[in-house]
Amino acid sequence: MFRLALISTGGTIEKTYQPRSGELKNETSVLDHMLAQLELPELEIERTRLMNKDSLDMDAGDHTRIAATAQQAAEVADGVIVVHGTDRLAESGETTCAAGRPGAPIVFTGAMRPYELRDTDAMQNLTEALAVVRLLAPGVYVAMHNKVLRFPGVMKDHDVGTFIGGS
Amino acid sequence: MFRLALISTGGTIEKTYQPRSGELKNETSVLDHMLAQLELPELEIERTRLMNKDSLDMDAGDHTRIAATAQQAAEVADGVIVVHGTDRLAESGETTCAAGRPGAPIVFTGAMRPYELRDTDAMQNLTEALAVVRLLAPGVYVAMHNKVLRFPGVMKDHDVGTFIGGS
Amino acid sequence: MFRLALISTGGTIEKTYQPRSGELKNETSVLDHMLAQLELPELEIERTRLMNKDSLDMDAGDHTRIAATAQQAAEVADGVIVVHGTDRLAESGETTCAAGRPGAPIVFTGAMRPYELRDTDAMQNLTEALAVVRLLAPGVYVAMHNKVLRFPGVMKDHDVGTFIGGS
Amino acid sequence: MFRLALISTGGTIEKTYQPRSGELKNETSVLDHMLAQLELPELEIERTRLMNKDSLDMDAGDHTRIAATAQQAAEVADGVIVVHGTDRLAESGETTCAAGRPGAPIVFTGAMRPYELRDTDAMQNLTEALAVVRLLAPGVYVAMHNKVLRFPGVMKDHDVGTFIGGS
Repeated sequence: MFRLALISTGGTIEKTYQPRSGELKNETSVLDHMLAQLELPELEIERTRLMNKDSLDMDAGDHTRIAATAQQAAEVADGVIVVHGTDRLAESGETTCAAGRPGAPIVFTGAMRPYELRDTDAMQNLTEALAVVRLLAPGVYVAMHNKVLRFPGVMKDHDVGTFIGGS
Repeated sequence: MFRLALISTGGTIEKTYQPRSGELKNETSVLDHMLAQLELPELEIERTRLMNKDSLDMDAGDHTRIAATAQQAAEVADGVIVVHGTDRLAESGETTCAAGRPGAPIVFTGAMRPYELRDTDAMQNLTEALAVVRLLAPGVYVAMHNKVLRFPGVMKDHDVGTFIGGS
Repeated sequence: MFRLALISTGGTIEKTYQPRSGELKNETSVLDHMLAQLELPELEIERTRLMNKDSLDMDAGDHTRIAATAQQAAEVADGVIVVHGTDRLAESGETTCAAGRPGAPIVFTGAMRPYELRDTDAMQNLTEALAVVRLLAPGVYVAMHNKVLRFPGVMKDHDVGTFIGGS
Repeated sequence: MFRLALISTGGTIEKTYQPRSGELKNETSVLDHMLAQLELPELEIERTRLMNKDSLDMDAGDHTRIAATAQQAAEVADGVIVVHGTDRLAESGETTCAAGRPGAPIVFTGAMRPYELRDTDAMQNLTEALAVVRLLAPGVYVAMHNKVLRFPGVMKDHDVGTFIGGS
């Protein structure tokens, strides 16, 4: 049984539709609904709902808090996944990386299109993160769009809408 | 073969996701994609893309233009469907109704949640409009949420998110 | 409030996947799951699970039982929908029709592809039946693939996979 | 750019619905449709449609042919994925493993429920295989249901509907 710490912070992946305003906002976590659709027979998941923010609204304190929570979880779990908005994911990743080599792999993931949309990369990215966290050596990574990149040095390519770089 | 005039004006039903801004906007028509999922073996559809507007952005000129286009289509077609934003659907419906009894049924429809969402009322409402337009007597109607209401006197119930009233 | 009697008899529309055998069979009713996805604010549904059969397995007794149940329901309800396998739907429809003019519209519907498939006509057909049953005069009909046909005289066109004929 | 050889052999994952017989069969490959839904920006895929069989219909010659094709692909590609029916996946995996250590990772995957169903493990398993093939050392594996198992010694647990064992 692999013990996974799953930390949610919000971001596009978790945005839901508000019928009155017609906007997509971070109000409720859709992660449980996503997890229920996957076959995860030998995975023990401990969920931490740290915050539910569009990452554009995150400040330095948020990045520090995310890094500390992830590092702490990596002391006891076999692997850690952090679900995060892609706009500031690299900042949280670098902060986590600068805090030292973790006790287990810490994998950031997110999505360019909310899970609530028919056509979304949310399930792909969560599925990838859940698969690779079981294989990676301790370190800080982003898993998204079929790639695993290792911090430091990861950046969002805003033109293409994916991550590049890493070490 | 039933000849249907299908007039699209935009509204929530047709909103699509803009990955860069993270917003849902009226940019491209998704109606063709929706129609392709339905079995419509004896229906001849003539599409008119009149406008692609959030109905909150419509003015009196838009309502008049929609009414005139629908009435004109009802002169030649066996039935007319107008896809419309729900916020100002009643205004366009009343304007169409005030222009006189049409030559064929004119059925307005729309959605509270965009087709692009997994959980949407768009397919239900379009399916209903396509089914009932073949049965109704000439007149102006809204078909949505399993109900057919006849103008004049139809109003949007903003609390429940559906239409009420009618004659 | 429209009082609907919804009678399920099985058929392709309700077939579910059996992982061990890899077959699609009539084991559990998926109608409740389908209904939960529709907005039906002013509909009161009374469900009768009469049988859950592939209609190819129905005999004369089944057709008689279905006709009697539908006619009886039409005495008290404002409308009746019978969900039925398409292969023998016409037999049940003719039997119901031969039993006399019902007290309310009786609408048969079904599907060529099970609801469990991604690409299915099940939601379209159920949505259509639910919409037109509120508009039709007392009589016996099939509603499917955007068409409403009236018994007697309805037949399945096996080549095209839809219904034709009617009076 | 990662060069992937993707070999399809059929199995439940690729079964499609035959409206006339009402059965799920291996007739056309749905893999291209599945791949089109994934974001795979730095993956170069070479597709080989080796066969399209329910694996229960495979014989020793088929297993040998699959093993030879996979081993040969692993000489030139950076990774190999074999899409396979789960019933005889272990036989093909063992045959591939017995042929020697390959030049690149060879990852078998499949599904318990066809992609054509709404509720399927096909996308999860393909997504996992595509993610882990980029990380694994040369060897023969099965990736499915969030787990990666290494041949020899992998078996299908028919009661649970997943794979266990491995070395």
